Amino acid sequence: MELLKKPVTGMKDILPDEMKLRDHVIHLAKETYGRYGFLPMQTPCVEHIENLSSNQGGENEKLIFKIMKRGEKLDIAGAQKENDLCDSGLRYDLTLPLSRYFANNQSKLPMPFKALQIGNVFRADRPQRGRFREFMQCDIDILGDPSPLAEVELINATASLLSRLDFKDFKIRINDRRILRAMASFCGFDEDQLPEVYIILDKMDKIGPEGVKKELMGAGLEEEKVENYTGLFEGEYGPAQTVHGLFERLNGSLSKEVSDDLIRIMEAADAVKTNDYSIVFDPTLVRGMGYYTGTIFEIEMEEFKGSVAGGGRYDAMIGNFTGNPVPACGFSIGFERIITILTEKGYRVPEENEKTVFLVEKNMDGAGLSRIMKEAADLRGRGVTVLIVTMAKNKKFQKETLSSQGYSSFREFFKEQDR
Amino acid sequence: MELLKKPVTGMKDILPDEMKLRDHVIHLAKETYGRYGFLPMQTPCVEHIENLSSNQGGENEKLIFKIMKRGEKLDIAGAQKENDLCDSGLRYDLTLPLSRYFANNQSKLPMPFKALQIGNVFRADRPQRGRFREFMQCDIDILGDPSPLAEVELINATASLLSRLDFKDFKIRINDRRILRAMASFCGFDEDQLPEVYIILDKMDKIGPEGVKKELMGAGLEEEKVENYTGLFEGEYGPAQTVHGLFERLNGSLSKEVSDDLIRIMEAADAVKTNDYSIVFDPTLVRGMGYYTGTIFEIEMEEFKGSVAGGGRYDAMIGNFTGNPVPACGFSIGFERIITILTEKGYRVPEENEKTVFLVEKNMDGAGLSRIMKEAADLRGRGVTVLIVTMAKNKKFQKETLSSQGYSSFREFFKEQDR
Repeated sequence: MELLKKPVTGMKDILPDEMKLRDHVIHLAKETYGRYGFLPMQTPCVEHIENLSSNQGGENEKLIFKIMKRGEKLDIAGAQKENDLCDSGLRYDLTLPLSRYFANNQSKLPMPFKALQIGNVFRADRPQRGRFREFMQCDIDILGDPSPLAEVELINATASLLSRLDFKDFKIRINDRRILRAMASFCGFDEDQLPEVYIILDKMDKIGPEGVKKELMGAGLEEEKVENYTGLFEGEYGPAQTVHGLFERLNGSLSKEVSDDLIRIMEAADAVKTNDYSIVFDPTLVRGMGYYTGTIFEIEMEEFKGSVAGGGRYDAMIGNFTGNPVPACGFSIGFERIITILTEKGYRVPEENEKTVFLVEKNMDGAGLSRIMKEAADLRGRGVTVLIVTMAKNKKFQKETLSSQGYSSFREFFKEQDR
Repeated sequence: MELLKKPVTGMKDILPDEMKLRDHVIHLAKETYGRYGFLPMQTPCVEHIENLSSNQGGENEKLIFKIMKRGEKLDIAGAQKENDLCDSGLRYDLTLPLSRYFANNQSKLPMPFKALQIGNVFRADRPQRGRFREFMQCDIDILGDPSPLAEVELINATASLLSRLDFKDFKIRINDRRILRAMASFCGFDEDQLPEVYIILDKMDKIGPEGVKKELMGAGLEEEKVENYTGLFEGEYGPAQTVHGLFERLNGSLSKEVSDDLIRIMEAADAVKTNDYSIVFDPTLVRGMGYYTGTIFEIEMEEFKGSVAGGGRYDAMIGNFTGNPVPACGFSIGFERIITILTEKGYRVPEENEKTVFLVEKNMDGAGLSRIMKEAADLRGRGVTVLIVTMAKNKKFQKETLSSQGYSSFREFFKEQDR
């Protein structure tokens, strides 16, 4: 069989320069989130096929890399369907494994449990530019805290990490699933119409209230209800411009607790914010994943279209594993997106130490090598990077090449007899 | 379908305490190896099934987790054998993917290329205590350097990392595949008898020269040849006690270059060694993997039976991908073994920063939360870990629990009206 040089379709080899940037972002994430008390944890890349296919992953369940059974358990002749042949698969996100992990280890974890999970996930998506089938996610989650403190901490920690990465002018949009629901039911939409309504509402920033109105009518929804609904967003958002305004207008359809909590969250997150970013209530924010039950948030940057982080409260998922409801809230930065943006911006990872090269003449004897190694060990012990290479014939070119790799000083070593 | 709480068979959830230790070791590895000029790089966890099954992985090829084809490509009815159903698998080591990576990216990499790769590998091994089916490897490799400089750097870097992790009294055993071959052919063994001879020789430290002699005879090898062979190791290793002694005795069967290089490597590695460890020539060292072509080395610690790191020169493998021979040499620490040993030794990860807790009264209003968040942000900005938690009814117990998690100071925050 011919050996293949390219990585498998949709996956990528990471070159040293990108890897240094990734390591730097991971280091900053661990440090920043650590200061908020988030604890590192890890789940296996491989997860039970039963868990992965339990209708908690939405569209991602169609993109699972499935792992074949092995040995006697693999019955090719008797197999009727795909799942007869597999017993596990690669995780498509970190949230489902976190829920299983919490159920499995609850007695050994602090409560509330503030989790930091950084790891690769896998989706057999159609390959496209900048989208990979194996990619890193970086999630923080607070399990066991029903209070708005969880949301505030998640938002502040994420904003703090982005600020430390020199991101400016980003916008944290915030909403609540229960507000979406209250608005829709206030206008008389039925439960089974909600998914369609949300999908159309989600386009507000692209097509505006008039466009939303048109699409809702096009979907066969009653004109009067549609008028009521889009009326909530009229003008510069109309009544929905503020949480309080919306609460007043919805007149009992929205619980006071939900609106008060959201106001508290925004107020507390606003208190620590720097000039780098803003926090806005956005009643059109929907977020796709079906598992959210309360607050939802997303971070966007105008200059780099689309969202760079997203999250929210999902109070039902963990209970599916534990049998008892466990409040949960999480925020995930789009790790790969952030790496792409930083690369495009020409972000430079700060070099922490001095870098020097020892050029060593060919066929150095043991005594000569020993001398060089001792000097190198001494420098390395003091934190200097020392690259020891065999001297090339074209020393000038060799030094130029090494300079371009960030080495700034050179020393040459010759055999004793040649000195 | 029932949801499953346990991880899949043979894989494990990593709890925060172990994760902190792992992060610490990874950090030290990156820093230490970085000072030797090793560059971080990464390959996908998923590799072509053609590459994984190319007879370069020895026994590990029997342990591959295979990934099923997807969509139209999956023909269950028409499948005859396992590989009709899969197109890729999870990597079982980091060396094969590194070889593919180098062939794929050679033009963008410095030469020689000093690679540091830390990542998970997967083997469907029989589950047993302390052995997992997903585990981390941490490899350094130097590609493109045929000189003994490569071996010296790999040995020094690895020894330096172990020393920084407070390991003492470890022994670096070193040998060369060409010495093994020279000894065997000097004694008249045939090429096809070598694998058997090596397997028996490998037991020297357990069964001694007499035991080796007995087993070789039992395997049907000629008595005279066996006597010659074990004679090389007699006494405290006999002629094979030193590389030079062995060279003299083998009388032309061993090339001068091989013996000189090995002496140079040992001399240069010895020069920088601290009291923490020793470097010894061990002509009985075999190492299992078939791909080694020259020097081989292994690190062992008496107190923790077995090897904690291993490696050697494999000058043929990369050429299988590139078409041209590329010299290569690598050293891999047994990451999981090291984590186990450190845990057993009660190794404590140094806590770098102060850790404090803000206990917050329940249902704090927005203004109160804002005040708390501001104070926390200020401390966090100065590197302090601040955990903000809702005050429990039993504050004493809550503080005790938090103390056991490493928090040393506490502050309490009450609602304005209660102050």
